[in-house]
Amino acid sequence: MADTSLRPLPAAEVTDWTHAADVVVAGYGIAGVCAAIEAARAGASVLILERTGGWGGAAAMAGGFIYLGGGTPLQQALGFEDTPENMEKFLLAAIGAGADKEKIADYCRGSVEHYSWLVANGVPFREAFWGEPGWEPPHDEGLMYSGGENAAPFNAIAKPAPRGHVPQMADKRIGQRSGGYMLMKPLAETAESLGVRAEFDTRIRRLVVDEDGRVVGLRATRFGEEITVRAERGVVLATGSFAYQEKMIEGYAPRLIGRPAAAIEEHDGIGIRLAQALGADLAHMDATEVAFFADPQMLARGILVNGRGQRYVPEDTYGGRIGQLTLMQQDNQAYLILDEQSYEQALATVSATPFFRQPPKWAAETVAELEADMGLPTLALQSTVECYNRHAAEGSDPLLGKKPEWVRPLRGSLAAFDLRGFTAGFTLGGLRTDLDSRVLHVAGDPIPGLFAAGRCTSGIATGGYVSGASLGDGSFYGRRAGIAAAKS
Amino acid sequence: MADTSLRPLPAAEVTDWTHAADVVVAGYGIAGVCAAIEAARAGASVLILERTGGWGGAAAMAGGFIYLGGGTPLQQALGFEDTPENMEKFLLAAIGAGADKEKIADYCRGSVEHYSWLVANGVPFREAFWGEPGWEPPHDEGLMYSGGENAAPFNAIAKPAPRGHVPQMADKRIGQRSGGYMLMKPLAETAESLGVRAEFDTRIRRLVVDEDGRVVGLRATRFGEEITVRAERGVVLATGSFAYQEKMIEGYAPRLIGRPAAAIEEHDGIGIRLAQALGADLAHMDATEVAFFADPQMLARGILVNGRGQRYVPEDTYGGRIGQLTLMQQDNQAYLILDEQSYEQALATVSATPFFRQPPKWAAETVAELEADMGLPTLALQSTVECYNRHAAEGSDPLLGKKPEWVRPLRGSLAAFDLRGFTAGFTLGGLRTDLDSRVLHVAGDPIPGLFAAGRCTSGIATGGYVSGASLGDGSFYGRRAGIAAAKS
Repeated sequence: MADTSLRPLPAAEVTDWTHAADVVVAGYGIAGVCAAIEAARAGASVLILERTGGWGGAAAMAGGFIYLGGGTPLQQALGFEDTPENMEKFLLAAIGAGADKEKIADYCRGSVEHYSWLVANGVPFREAFWGEPGWEPPHDEGLMYSGGENAAPFNAIAKPAPRGHVPQMADKRIGQRSGGYMLMKPLAETAESLGVRAEFDTRIRRLVVDEDGRVVGLRATRFGEEITVRAERGVVLATGSFAYQEKMIEGYAPRLIGRPAAAIEEHDGIGIRLAQALGADLAHMDATEVAFFADPQMLARGILVNGRGQRYVPEDTYGGRIGQLTLMQQDNQAYLILDEQSYEQALATVSATPFFRQPPKWAAETVAELEADMGLPTLALQSTVECYNRHAAEGSDPLLGKKPEWVRPLRGSLAAFDLRGFTAGFTLGGLRTDLDSRVLHVAGDPIPGLFAAGRCTSGIATGGYVSGASLGDGSFYGRRAGIAAAKS
Repeated sequence: MADTSLRPLPAAEVTDWTHAADVVVAGYGIAGVCAAIEAARAGASVLILERTGGWGGAAAMAGGFIYLGGGTPLQQALGFEDTPENMEKFLLAAIGAGADKEKIADYCRGSVEHYSWLVANGVPFREAFWGEPGWEPPHDEGLMYSGGENAAPFNAIAKPAPRGHVPQMADKRIGQRSGGYMLMKPLAETAESLGVRAEFDTRIRRLVVDEDGRVVGLRATRFGEEITVRAERGVVLATGSFAYQEKMIEGYAPRLIGRPAAAIEEHDGIGIRLAQALGADLAHMDATEVAFFADPQMLARGILVNGRGQRYVPEDTYGGRIGQLTLMQQDNQAYLILDEQSYEQALATVSATPFFRQPPKWAAETVAELEADMGLPTLALQSTVECYNRHAAEGSDPLLGKKPEWVRPLRGSLAAFDLRGFTAGFTLGGLRTDLDSRVLHVAGDPIPGLFAAGRCTSGIATGGYVSGASLGDGSFYGRRAGIAAAKS
């Protein structure tokens, strides 16, 4: 069914502009608010069009990691050495084939300044480090490993440094609304103090384009009424991922069919599609973040095996990496095996995700028994455990490089947790943009008047993922979009 | 660097049309020739613009498999039962998540008719079946399994039927130019006999679009000279994959960086990019066919293990499936292990790919020795062989379902073949088209005057692959494009 509204609206057909501003931003999430702040500071009048009833977007629901490094004041205060080059080396390895080398280098070089900018705009980070395995800090610690920097194979490629910066959840009442909320709140207040206006409950429908192909505004609807907004200098698309656009998921990232997560239903790819209609180029449309519904404290202490009973990932690495490898390389089949001692130790730890600590599906006195109960072929699991135990007795894991502190032979009665299908995620692919967040045409040049940032663009994570990459590049390139649009 | 030539050229700016035809086809490969034949039969004047000096495209270099089934006369003559429903069931399983269900159903329903059409247009198929493991028949047999239909897990999902139809290489001199050549030759002759004209050495540069957004022609260059071609009814893009467009490979299918294959250098994605500039929608840009440089006769008789010494695929399945799983799920790491008896048996067989029979990299008297020589952790390979042998002694392979005829314990001295990085392939993603091969705009409706088929479109293989899918859907939807364009 055709949705002709996606086609650009010729400016000549607009008879009445409902609103006007120098820079019009679509989407009041992390990329949008940063674009608005910078555009306003550059002297532009700014109007944000937001589809929901308030600011926040997916960012305000997020745990709040912002991936920053290269020697931020927080890293330094907590005794971690890092350089932009070291950060870049890690990211190139973690993202893998197809990494946007230029964007990653740029992001790493600007990371310390970006941290200071966030702090200057009221984002609080507490000087405390959380070093245990986990998806997030369980309290208000400001720094944590969030990408497997300290796990194999990356700990041999770059010097491990934690780069997951989390805004402090100081007020318990507000804190319950997540670190992402504590990121958005001061930024939204900053935007407001700079005179940024916002129209809520306003859904963008079409880009308005003049006869030279320049984007000069947006057509939107507000409570069923059509409005048209003039952008004197530029339009910034900050509308989020396409995790909730079924046809796009089916066509680009089918492994995520039926499993969107860490996104909001407004993430329907509208910004991507509107720009595509102007000939915008895309990149890495298959890339996805993948969460894995298991507790890292338990994972690190056990062995994780695929549907054939084989290990495939160091269990002490970043959970998102485990999720990606499980969904993309193991047909979404995973089982966690723990012995009694490890299970009890894990249960005694503090975790931000205690709800992932479900009881085991199988328990048995021997590996052979467990293997049979799980329906695995004889020897499939036994040989995995034998090989693991043999090396674990010497404190090593030559197969996958799990760190010695988590390596111990599995002994006595065992428990197996059924983690098949325990993944979900959001999309990382989108519009191809340059370092000034200009949306690039398929011919390679920027589309005049059009800028984009956040998860409607392809950012620093184009294959592998690290927690904080989305709030990270969303805020970083959101700023760039605001600066470039104000100048445009 | 901007390549502004990709942007559509307004028809109003064209002062002189060098050529004109009802239907203009870009690319004289399999999709283009089929489009031309059908358009000409429907009464249209047809002009093909071909970038090289002659007809053929990648098709003429190909082995020549055309994936057809549902009970073709050839299948029937050779005693194989098949139905469109059975074929569809297999394809949905083999292609996996994101399969274009509508296109697959349509293709399966039309498959028998399409076979007859090819035969009626002079494509010869010899009534002979080749049942041995292999990439292609070693002689001029006309039918072969080409997608793992008779291997696990698919042999339990749909009734196995061979569907790789290969044009007969009757004339030895011509035959050396491959089955694909024997497919293209009669079709090109048919086209010529129908009055289809062709301009060779002609490279398309821009689409010409009228003020209503309808595609009405093409701008091209011929020996450095610009020409403009009027298409009264429609333009058919049949320009092949983007396997040789580095930026697109990097941006969409980075696993193929540095490893294009079974494509030609002219496959630079031009058709895709020209249509994108008009707002055309894309699909499955990450999907790729993957060849694996190993001999199936050897593979079936051994065990294939990944970089951790673990088995991951039934070794008797389609080589392209082994290639995909190796590249996409095993980080391109693979080793083949054979014992002496199996190795000798394999070498005594007939194969279309004897050049893949390279000598082993390692040989040892025991698995433990081999494992150490290969640099695998102690027990990694030993436990894999132990588990395999245990079940092989009973003639079964519960871990992966290799068929009993290929299952035998590995005994005595062993050889290991280093197959790391032994993959290459071409891209399967491209323009989103409907069943009439109309190019769809991102808004969902067809772009007037624009049609496409072959590997510049997303076809029946959007994830998994079967040999013959590209000549198959290229010819099938090439015909549809010609019919639709002639009527347009």
